[in-house]
Amino acid sequence: MDTILPSFVNGDWWMPQSGVDATVVRDASTGAEVVAVSSEGIDLAGALDYARDVGRRSLGALTFHQRALLLKQFAQALTARKDELYELAKTAGATVRDSMIDVDGGIGVLFTYSSKGRRELPNARAILDGPLEQLSKDGSFLGRHVYTRLPGVVVQINAFNFPTWGPLEKLAPAFLAGLPTIIKPATPTAHLTEAWVRILVESGLLPEGSVQLVSGALPGVFDLLRLGDVVAFTGSASTADALRAQVPAGVRFSAETDSINASVLGPDAAPGTPVFDAYIRQLFIELTAKAGQKCTAIRRAVVPAASIPAVVSALRARLDEKLVLGDPHAEGVTMGPLVSVAQHDEVMSHAHQLVSAGGEVLLGSFSVPDVVRADGTTGPAPEGAFAAPMLIGFGADAPAAAHEVEAFGPVSTVIGYSSLDEAADLVNRGGGMLVTSVATDDEAVARELWERIAPYSGRVLLLDSADARTSTGHGSPVPHLVHGGPGRAGGGEELGGIRAVKHFLQRTAVQGSPDMLTAITGVWHPGARVVADGEHPFRKPLSRLRVGDRFASGERAVTLDDIETFAHFTGDTFYAHMDEEAAAANPFFPGRVAHGYLLVSFAAGLFVEPAPGPVLANYGLEDLRFVTPVSPGDSIRVELTAKQITPRETDEYGEVRWDAVIRNQDDALVASYDVLTLVAKE
Amino acid sequence: MDTILPSFVNGDWWMPQSGVDATVVRDASTGAEVVAVSSEGIDLAGALDYARDVGRRSLGALTFHQRALLLKQFAQALTARKDELYELAKTAGATVRDSMIDVDGGIGVLFTYSSKGRRELPNARAILDGPLEQLSKDGSFLGRHVYTRLPGVVVQINAFNFPTWGPLEKLAPAFLAGLPTIIKPATPTAHLTEAWVRILVESGLLPEGSVQLVSGALPGVFDLLRLGDVVAFTGSASTADALRAQVPAGVRFSAETDSINASVLGPDAAPGTPVFDAYIRQLFIELTAKAGQKCTAIRRAVVPAASIPAVVSALRARLDEKLVLGDPHAEGVTMGPLVSVAQHDEVMSHAHQLVSAGGEVLLGSFSVPDVVRADGTTGPAPEGAFAAPMLIGFGADAPAAAHEVEAFGPVSTVIGYSSLDEAADLVNRGGGMLVTSVATDDEAVARELWERIAPYSGRVLLLDSADARTSTGHGSPVPHLVHGGPGRAGGGEELGGIRAVKHFLQRTAVQGSPDMLTAITGVWHPGARVVADGEHPFRKPLSRLRVGDRFASGERAVTLDDIETFAHFTGDTFYAHMDEEAAAANPFFPGRVAHGYLLVSFAAGLFVEPAPGPVLANYGLEDLRFVTPVSPGDSIRVELTAKQITPRETDEYGEVRWDAVIRNQDDALVASYDVLTLVAKE
Repeated sequence: MDTILPSFVNGDWWMPQSGVDATVVRDASTGAEVVAVSSEGIDLAGALDYARDVGRRSLGALTFHQRALLLKQFAQALTARKDELYELAKTAGATVRDSMIDVDGGIGVLFTYSSKGRRELPNARAILDGPLEQLSKDGSFLGRHVYTRLPGVVVQINAFNFPTWGPLEKLAPAFLAGLPTIIKPATPTAHLTEAWVRILVESGLLPEGSVQLVSGALPGVFDLLRLGDVVAFTGSASTADALRAQVPAGVRFSAETDSINASVLGPDAAPGTPVFDAYIRQLFIELTAKAGQKCTAIRRAVVPAASIPAVVSALRARLDEKLVLGDPHAEGVTMGPLVSVAQHDEVMSHAHQLVSAGGEVLLGSFSVPDVVRADGTTGPAPEGAFAAPMLIGFGADAPAAAHEVEAFGPVSTVIGYSSLDEAADLVNRGGGMLVTSVATDDEAVARELWERIAPYSGRVLLLDSADARTSTGHGSPVPHLVHGGPGRAGGGEELGGIRAVKHFLQRTAVQGSPDMLTAITGVWHPGARVVADGEHPFRKPLSRLRVGDRFASGERAVTLDDIETFAHFTGDTFYAHMDEEAAAANPFFPGRVAHGYLLVSFAAGLFVEPAPGPVLANYGLEDLRFVTPVSPGDSIRVELTAKQITPRETDEYGEVRWDAVIRNQDDALVASYDVLTLVAKE
Repeated sequence: MDTILPSFVNGDWWMPQSGVDATVVRDASTGAEVVAVSSEGIDLAGALDYARDVGRRSLGALTFHQRALLLKQFAQALTARKDELYELAKTAGATVRDSMIDVDGGIGVLFTYSSKGRRELPNARAILDGPLEQLSKDGSFLGRHVYTRLPGVVVQINAFNFPTWGPLEKLAPAFLAGLPTIIKPATPTAHLTEAWVRILVESGLLPEGSVQLVSGALPGVFDLLRLGDVVAFTGSASTADALRAQVPAGVRFSAETDSINASVLGPDAAPGTPVFDAYIRQLFIELTAKAGQKCTAIRRAVVPAASIPAVVSALRARLDEKLVLGDPHAEGVTMGPLVSVAQHDEVMSHAHQLVSAGGEVLLGSFSVPDVVRADGTTGPAPEGAFAAPMLIGFGADAPAAAHEVEAFGPVSTVIGYSSLDEAADLVNRGGGMLVTSVATDDEAVARELWERIAPYSGRVLLLDSADARTSTGHGSPVPHLVHGGPGRAGGGEELGGIRAVKHFLQRTAVQGSPDMLTAITGVWHPGARVVADGEHPFRKPLSRLRVGDRFASGERAVTLDDIETFAHFTGDTFYAHMDEEAAAANPFFPGRVAHGYLLVSFAAGLFVEPAPGPVLANYGLEDLRFVTPVSPGDSIRVELTAKQITPRETDEYGEVRWDAVIRNQDDALVASYDVLTLVAKE
């Protein structure tokens, strides 16, 4: 028996006393023992308690921005040592290119969440959702939605195919939300997950209790979970269904399961067109990258019936040119084995099912392929888990098996269609997909297919001549966009930027007075207390500025002369400002009125503090609405109130959002907007 | 046997052949037979097919705004005949005030969704979610999230307590989303649901197949559902759990269950304070309105231990003053019976459980109360389902039963606490609440409790002196805010404005070129084709304007003189515009720069069309960001592209959102924003 893979729980590395029940992980290319995996005797309840107590406390002490900064540092620590991860991953059949998908992909998720966390979230611990709702006419009773941290922990149950990206794409948003995570990797690649967790532990960056690793099974975990905990699962649809039934009430369960994804070749994309070529390149990548072991890989190529021979021969030509199947330890190998012999046997068994259901092997075969061995020699490798790419053909009358059986390896069906309507029907028979792609330059084709397939797909990729070179690919989830899909795809959603952070937060509607909403959200609400202490709030650095600090200007008359001066100066001689009769004929104006831009310019003149001070710049404006027109002879005044203060972690300044309200001489609302400024901390 | 209540399926009213299996509904006050309910022999599969085929087609032909307008017309049709509904509801024990909660509440939901649908949604069939994500550096590959209609139907399973509001709060967002609904009311009040459905059918307003009603059971319904269908359930937690286990994969199931809601009296809210009085008024309402049969009613009054006697005596005084228990047919009755004798027996049994667990009856009793009969006489009413309000007291050491047993009637526990921490613990022992309220004038108390209880509560009401008179109340969900809660409350979300519409839509991430994203969303995306045909797009009415229509201005130099003129004219003499040395010392400016307001004003001068035309007004601006500063001597130009067009259904104009981009002489981005205009249809 080789070494037993350690777990990291309760703040320390842990190993089982005996390795009796350990599962041996073997090199995917050679069958040699790599490591043994067991969590026998682990104190899971203790690990959960540690997460609930220590982990929640250490993460709860940090704001979104502070957590986001740590994610960046995690990414940097992993980047510095990623070659170690590449090398180790070869034992699981991953080429360096495969590892780039998994390792660099995972690091990319960390960088993206770090950046989005700081750009799109407040430097606080709660997120406001949607606009203020005024629930009483007098403004004394308001409603708002707020996301706060769930009162639990996250248990990840991962699939074998992405030992780095998989746990990290679940960890990043959970960490940002402030929830501790317990990672359970899949056994065949548990040593790859252990390797990067070890790098993070050694970096000293992990807040205490924020990340734990159980290398092995999680016996009885569902009995230990409770309201506010989250189980994030990736794996097979059948396992998802079995787990879902065990989840206690109040525990969120999200599943991302492999699905029978389709890629449609549009009727316009005939052989010889750039889109056809792009389609073949994509199909090649999806069959060979990670040996087809991606939940998002193309399982069904839905193509015009007449194009099937051209698709097969173009793909064969590309395979002949590019494919070098072998042990990733050998130079020049472009595709490795499946992760294990067991996985190989399952893929073959599913491919056989497709053939038994009437499919025709159009490319590849069931025989043991010749491969490049680690020493550079070539020959059959019966101990390894190698499978060569395979296409299995069906007509539009393909039986259910063509839409339901997934050979989780380098295997795709090719299904012929004769009308767009039929193509859409074929796609949707997959019963819910993580991703569907459509290769076409015809917008009408894209539109018609989109309308039919969108509600069955978590992601739709439209491949055309314009994006063929820049597309991130059918099989690549990006952290900016939701990953997950309805029905067979598990019904869950992951990633999608800040959307995923909210999966780890509870949305609560809160009703109360403006002062109370201000007190609990930290954001000033209209009607709440203000401080107008004589000092212009533009003179207060962040260290002294508080939400509710207000500047109220004096009045300024707006004359016809002002309007004409502004019109001629700017060139904005719109008739509503210049022509009394025409303006009065407009349904919204009583006669000539001031320019909206004039009003906000005058307002700036009313609230500005000319001398250098903490306010460094006005970088933008939000939600400007003009409500009551201003006629010549009216007066305006402006109130500016500090609404939200977001100090930056890494700069000597931060963002301040000001509530700006312009009123006329009758107190009628003329305009409202938010002024966005950068303000120095001192 | 009385009449059997009809169903409305397949476009027509339907009655079972025999009434053998019918359930008799009896008057809650007198026990007299009212109606019998049965769906024996109904063709449920046919009703589902009809919804999938005819219902989806008729709703799919309408845009969000057209559906929203219909909701308003439904509300008007029901308003015109609501007295009929009030009268009928008396048979179920509802006073007119109770009916106002149910009937007017339901009508209010329709009005709110009609208004929000037209103000907050595009006049289209899909909703864009979140900002554009640029996925390639050159802008040729973009990502976006789009909500489209789920490919199924909605089956509602309703509770007895809100026969009007309950189905309507589920129907309004589903209808707006374009999904047909099948309504299954609860038997004891099925005749009340039938009554308003009949009004809508008679109004002729219902799109064919959009609404069906099954008065009675839905045998085998789960075997008939499939991917894209939605089951929206309101009822007990145990039934929710049982149903959840039967839901086929791919069918969304949302549950709103009664929960053990708490209302905390803050330590500052001593007897004699306005907040104490507001707390007592609220407790009175929650105990007596609908005889306490609300999922959101207060079940646990969590009060400072020392205040328990004062709370009980103040509530007793209010009951003595205001409570008239009796048959709602009688004049002056303020509280009716429970809906049925069975319900009465269940409430009493649960109240007994609370007492057996150690609770002390502080107010009320288990004996049959005297009531006002329909004829005005007073006396015991053994045939009716009457129960008088009851308070059952516990200490902070209250057993689990105090937090788990729900007497779904005019019964609340009163639990004493001695510290805020203890109060929060007590609240959270409810295991997930629809609503928690806190009565306090102390912001620190509100903040501390909020932080502890928010993640356990779907809604939190903060009752203070400022909102005591305007609060919509602990027990009243409002359509603007989410209704639902974690854990014991079912884990679902309903209402919350447009949030609920999205429960009936599928969110799909789409990736593609700017042209493809424009083609499928109908909204122009940066980089997509533009039309600059020589005609200024401001001269095109909606009938001719298309997204992508562009105006590109000439250049305009920005001189130091312009900056000084603008500064002195507006009063905005900020040093960054006026003082070379001070400006250069600012981290963001190379020296003196033009005002942002000057730039957008000049841009308006560059793109304006002075003469009267289809553009009626510029009503606002969104997302203005200043990117590159403009120094004296630089030039600017502006490009304006029609981005989104939203014709109104009821006006001769609509909204047009223009993408505006200001660039300098080096093509660097100076500013970007959206200009919001009103444009005539012709």
